Amino acid sequence: MSLQLLKALTYLRGASGLLSQIQRNTAHIKTWSWREKIANQAQTKVFFGTSSCIWSTTSWGSKKQKRSVQLRSATADFIMSNPEIEQQLAPLRERVQEQGNLVRELKAKGAAELDVKKAVAELKVRKKALEEKELALTPSVVSFDRAKMEDLLKRRFFYDQSFAIYGGITGQYDFGPMGCALKSNILALWRQFFSLEEQMLEVDCSMLTPEPVLKASGHVERFADLMVKDVKTGECFRLDHLIKQALEKLCKAKDATAALQAECEDIIIKLDGLNKQELSDVLAKYQIKSPLTGNDLTEPIEFNLMFATQIGPTGLVKGFLRPETAQGIFVNFKRLLEFNQGRLPFAVAQIGNSFRNEISPRSGLIRVREFTMAEIEHFCDPVLKDHPKFKNVASEKLTLYSACNQMDGKSAQQSTIGEAVASKLVANETLGYYMARIQQFLHAIGIKPECLRFRQHMGNEMAHYACDCWDAEILTSYGWVECVGCADRSAYDLSQHSAATGVRLVAEKRLPAPKTVEVSEIVPNKQALGKTFKKDAKAITEALAKLSLDDIKSVETQLSAGGQYKLTLSDGATHELGAETIGVKHSTKTVHVEEFIPSVVEPSFGIGRIMYALLEHSFQCRDGDEQRCYFTLPPLVAPLKCSILPLSNNAEFQPYTQQLSASLTKAELSHKVDDSSGSIGRRYARTDEIAIPYGITVDFDTLKEPHTVTLRDRNTMKQVRLGLDVVVGVVKDLATARLTWTQVLEQYPAFEQQETTK
Amino acid sequence: MSLQLLKALTYLRGASGLLSQIQRNTAHIKTWSWREKIANQAQTKVFFGTSSCIWSTTSWGSKKQKRSVQLRSATADFIMSNPEIEQQLAPLRERVQEQGNLVRELKAKGAAELDVKKAVAELKVRKKALEEKELALTPSVVSFDRAKMEDLLKRRFFYDQSFAIYGGITGQYDFGPMGCALKSNILALWRQFFSLEEQMLEVDCSMLTPEPVLKASGHVERFADLMVKDVKTGECFRLDHLIKQALEKLCKAKDATAALQAECEDIIIKLDGLNKQELSDVLAKYQIKSPLTGNDLTEPIEFNLMFATQIGPTGLVKGFLRPETAQGIFVNFKRLLEFNQGRLPFAVAQIGNSFRNEISPRSGLIRVREFTMAEIEHFCDPVLKDHPKFKNVASEKLTLYSACNQMDGKSAQQSTIGEAVASKLVANETLGYYMARIQQFLHAIGIKPECLRFRQHMGNEMAHYACDCWDAEILTSYGWVECVGCADRSAYDLSQHSAATGVRLVAEKRLPAPKTVEVSEIVPNKQALGKTFKKDAKAITEALAKLSLDDIKSVETQLSAGGQYKLTLSDGATHELGAETIGVKHSTKTVHVEEFIPSVVEPSFGIGRIMYALLEHSFQCRDGDEQRCYFTLPPLVAPLKCSILPLSNNAEFQPYTQQLSASLTKAELSHKVDDSSGSIGRRYARTDEIAIPYGITVDFDTLKEPHTVTLRDRNTMKQVRLGLDVVVGVVKDLATARLTWTQVLEQYPAFEQQETTK
Repeated sequence: MSLQLLKALTYLRGASGLLSQIQRNTAHIKTWSWREKIANQAQTKVFFGTSSCIWSTTSWGSKKQKRSVQLRSATADFIMSNPEIEQQLAPLRERVQEQGNLVRELKAKGAAELDVKKAVAELKVRKKALEEKELALTPSVVSFDRAKMEDLLKRRFFYDQSFAIYGGITGQYDFGPMGCALKSNILALWRQFFSLEEQMLEVDCSMLTPEPVLKASGHVERFADLMVKDVKTGECFRLDHLIKQALEKLCKAKDATAALQAECEDIIIKLDGLNKQELSDVLAKYQIKSPLTGNDLTEPIEFNLMFATQIGPTGLVKGFLRPETAQGIFVNFKRLLEFNQGRLPFAVAQIGNSFRNEISPRSGLIRVREFTMAEIEHFCDPVLKDHPKFKNVASEKLTLYSACNQMDGKSAQQSTIGEAVASKLVANETLGYYMARIQQFLHAIGIKPECLRFRQHMGNEMAHYACDCWDAEILTSYGWVECVGCADRSAYDLSQHSAATGVRLVAEKRLPAPKTVEVSEIVPNKQALGKTFKKDAKAITEALAKLSLDDIKSVETQLSAGGQYKLTLSDGATHELGAETIGVKHSTKTVHVEEFIPSVVEPSFGIGRIMYALLEHSFQCRDGDEQRCYFTLPPLVAPLKCSILPLSNNAEFQPYTQQLSASLTKAELSHKVDDSSGSIGRRYARTDEIAIPYGITVDFDTLKEPHTVTLRDRNTMKQVRLGLDVVVGVVKDLATARLTWTQVLEQYPAFEQQETTK
Repeated sequence: MSLQLLKALTYLRGASGLLSQIQRNTAHIKTWSWREKIANQAQTKVFFGTSSCIWSTTSWGSKKQKRSVQLRSATADFIMSNPEIEQQLAPLRERVQEQGNLVRELKAKGAAELDVKKAVAELKVRKKALEEKELALTPSVVSFDRAKMEDLLKRRFFYDQSFAIYGGITGQYDFGPMGCALKSNILALWRQFFSLEEQMLEVDCSMLTPEPVLKASGHVERFADLMVKDVKTGECFRLDHLIKQALEKLCKAKDATAALQAECEDIIIKLDGLNKQELSDVLAKYQIKSPLTGNDLTEPIEFNLMFATQIGPTGLVKGFLRPETAQGIFVNFKRLLEFNQGRLPFAVAQIGNSFRNEISPRSGLIRVREFTMAEIEHFCDPVLKDHPKFKNVASEKLTLYSACNQMDGKSAQQSTIGEAVASKLVANETLGYYMARIQQFLHAIGIKPECLRFRQHMGNEMAHYACDCWDAEILTSYGWVECVGCADRSAYDLSQHSAATGVRLVAEKRLPAPKTVEVSEIVPNKQALGKTFKKDAKAITEALAKLSLDDIKSVETQLSAGGQYKLTLSDGATHELGAETIGVKHSTKTVHVEEFIPSVVEPSFGIGRIMYALLEHSFQCRDGDEQRCYFTLPPLVAPLKCSILPLSNNAEFQPYTQQLSASLTKAELSHKVDDSSGSIGRRYARTDEIAIPYGITVDFDTLKEPHTVTLRDRNTMKQVRLGLDVVVGVVKDLATARLTWTQVLEQYPAFEQQETTK
């Protein structure tokens, strides 16, 4: 087993402890790309990616279930490479596959829904058994202490609850100096990595969004969670959380029978797949009351997760805080296409805040009411989804957890993106290109490669319009957390806004050869219309111009039969039109271009989630001193690049400290001067806590010619001695990844004193 | 007259046309720092800065009035340096000053309010006469065509109305690729200029703010405008706008008598100073109806400008979208002070969006519902407002329009900030330091120096707690627009939040020598309390611990008289406590530190307003071709730094174009490849429109060895020929202001072809 793998496993076990604990922690983490869910709720039957898998919407693959399944992927390589363990697991794997096949069969022959559900439930039980066995067979070495990390984050104000002096608001966080700088640096790198590199068009759209826009996108109708209220106090509970908590309590009660326990566990497993009525039945059956007061609860209520407000003073224009940034791009499509001189493909990027009024937010930065997203909408010709730069990333190796593997009880697999696209596992080059770039970006900021995978959406998760969708999931102590969604969304969004506004959101492409097309149009007799309909004539003429080809055919049929055509205006009024007022003209014309609605490939980054995962991945404690914790954030994203520490408060050090600070500022290197009275070791520890990668110490040797200082590396705690005149350049090169610490060690003499807490 | 001055005047006249037009355009532009107004509304009598000026709140100095007065400041130098003109103005100046003195006198002796108001109205009339004369005497040369600029901004999607395909929402704008990049670049420079340079702590706080926070800050009660509604349609009108519009219409009516005209004009001038009742009287007197329907209007209604929403599902937690970013910093003061190891001074920065639900937003980017601010809160010891880096900026020359000059009919004056602080015109070094830095920043991004001034708040504008406040105002075609506020806000905000939460938002400083202080404290007899008050004992003990020194004295007095002390708990319950349950203990202790509430100096930048002013200042049309317009944005902030234009679509050019693009990306230079079919001149014109400062053209000479390209400067349209291997380095140096175009011209041979629109 490689060291890297061992580390991954260690991390996994340490971070999660027991499977059951992970399940408890993760059940409330919702998918990032809610839009999939929104579209999905309207869907009846879907088809996706690989030809062997046809699947329809059922309770299968609920979020909780998937999360626990997926924990295996990090352990998969270890297990697969260990024949003895694999032997123990083989019968369990078989049982999963057997049941999976049964489910497929039932669906294929259109069995009764209840039978399918039962089969799926059994499948889940078998998968759970497999996963637990897998985890039990992986070794555990050290433990990740989330509380300790959170304490440090709070103490050094990386981020903390907003408005704490007013009692605080759950699900809202303020980023302090270090959190804000980390976020800024991640976003700056993101801009460079995506916007600049791909010459994307970056936009900055309004957050306050009028209702019709979000009606068209489906958010007004379907962006909701179920909740219940305490009938007396009005306290609200998210329904699925509440039931889970209540049933878990029932199971643990002293008098709980084995039958009751099994029953409750079964419901908990199926929870995400139950509809409103079924959940209501569970509430009634187990007489679930408010956990706070014991009062009765209301029937389940759908609670829309958007923050509503009024725009302007009339109280008539309803608006919402946007639940995602993407809609701002779609409604500007025409302007953007024009800016790009009418050419496809092009990509639009946006970084900005979005808002979701969670019923009961938990899990720190992972589930919040206000968050920063970075989204890309790549518009392209639906029949040409190749990507000119795909070859540059084709050999990038990704951990892919395909929908089929998820259903077959198999593990995630490593593959180059080139192979994955060639085999059609990933739908097209453009989607594959972005997946590879997402991975490169996440690696660059410091996400551990062994804790990153791409999970394909399964049938019941993926929107009916989407061709393919992969989530970049990062393993944290909350389990696998979806941090970046990457979906081929076809023409869905532009179509919706076109339909809602009547504005054609289309692109044009030149036909291989000019084409002759038949044109049918209504020719109004304006004079006769005016005479007959007076002031309504204008509205009638306008309505006629909007008739579809089918309508025109219908007009023709009726007129030629000597009848009247009944025209309905937008205000509902109807008018009868005869041959004396309108006619139908046929002609042909030569067209050189055809219009089409572009497809959209959308990578969508949850910046807060990525930041949180990065903090977990970089949290460390010094060997033998559990109190000295620090973050190994890469210099590229570290909040501050360098510290300057005078050895003592001797006044002679001051000019050097000031000169260094001025030079670092000139070199655009964020830094911190710590001339407080603590020992140098103690001050190093303080700078380690806020992830400063390099420290310059001014000591008595600095005063002598040639002036020198020491430079210390946070991760290794090693130091070198180098000239005062070169140190800023060296730090600049280190901070911009043009130089590694190993190279510095080779170039400059080691220095081995100072590091003492005394 | 210097060329610069001539330009300023030209610009001023050109931009504004007639004074009356400016007044029409600017009357609806509100002050940026609303907080001043909020605090101000609570104030009765104020005192400010320079000792010779004592002023109380009256209708004096209404916004409109001030704006027109201030137009003179840009023309002042011209006029003052022209004795002939000054001679014509002298009698008018005298009349203003004479009346100004009368007003002062009336106020000093406490004359009746009506008399003062009358005197102020007369003063305004005299000032208006002076201003009109001044403007009439300044030469007009070219005209600034706002419509043409706005057309370009829209056509090339710098920004445009949000949700336009849905009909749009007034007061909300989406920034397209060029606007977004310009904004990003301004903010990046801002971060470097302020945060990095001063090692500020940058934070990123929640936008959704619970009600109690904004109650404490005064926004819930006083952040409102007056409006009236159409009684039938519900249409809303901002009251002051409506009255102004109605009276102007009355004046213009054919049958308007001179008396009516004078009456209306008088009201228009006084408008901003009228209270709710007075405005209501005006409505009634002139029988003002809805301008859209002629329907009756409601009585004036106070409309709070914050967007309200509910946080969480209960409907019980009221929240608002923050109207400014500053409060997020104040509520985090304790954490930030701790992060700074308890030391003062330190500065906190925040960039983020704020929201104001304007009744009827107009004036493009200047008055919007959603906008980006960059705010700094500099916390310091109230008695030590010096600044260690003040000496670095002391010689910076600013145009200062002091409160006294505004009252005395005098012009703005030039002064170094060093002199201004020394003479106490500017209250302290810290405030002065930021004013100078604000100016340096605005110059760096391209604001014209002759169109920038600092205007001091007068008594009725400045909050009662503020020591001094100066607005950086930029001259645009809307008149002088407040773009950056810079206020010494004393301890107001921290005190408010302390009072509201009971959390001590204070800093400590070491006393010069330890001090012995007397300590009085209540000593509860816990046993007796418990026995007597049972479950209330705990609340009583807590309430006793919170008693003030005065309360303790009162306890002592009552107990020693054998009485009972009546203690009121926070829930309103009262308890009588006698000597058997509590006592008072006196002791002394030696203290080494004292607590104090820090003062705050606050520079607050309105990024959208600055951007708009910058676009106006940099808008140009080519001599002799009014259709070829462009923006002279400095390379540092220009959206894209460079274009790459192959001379034609000859395939041989492609490798060079691609190579250049890759090199520019590597050098982190945003750029645009335009290989469309237009002539090179036409493509240059297109890149000029989006402010690209430099253009590289690949032509047939590029194909030959040594490979060369041409580099073109947008502003001068001059070109040089230089090596393909050096051009990216040259552009990088130009874009980061390490090299000027003049230097490039000296270094490389000129190239004089290509520039043709044919």
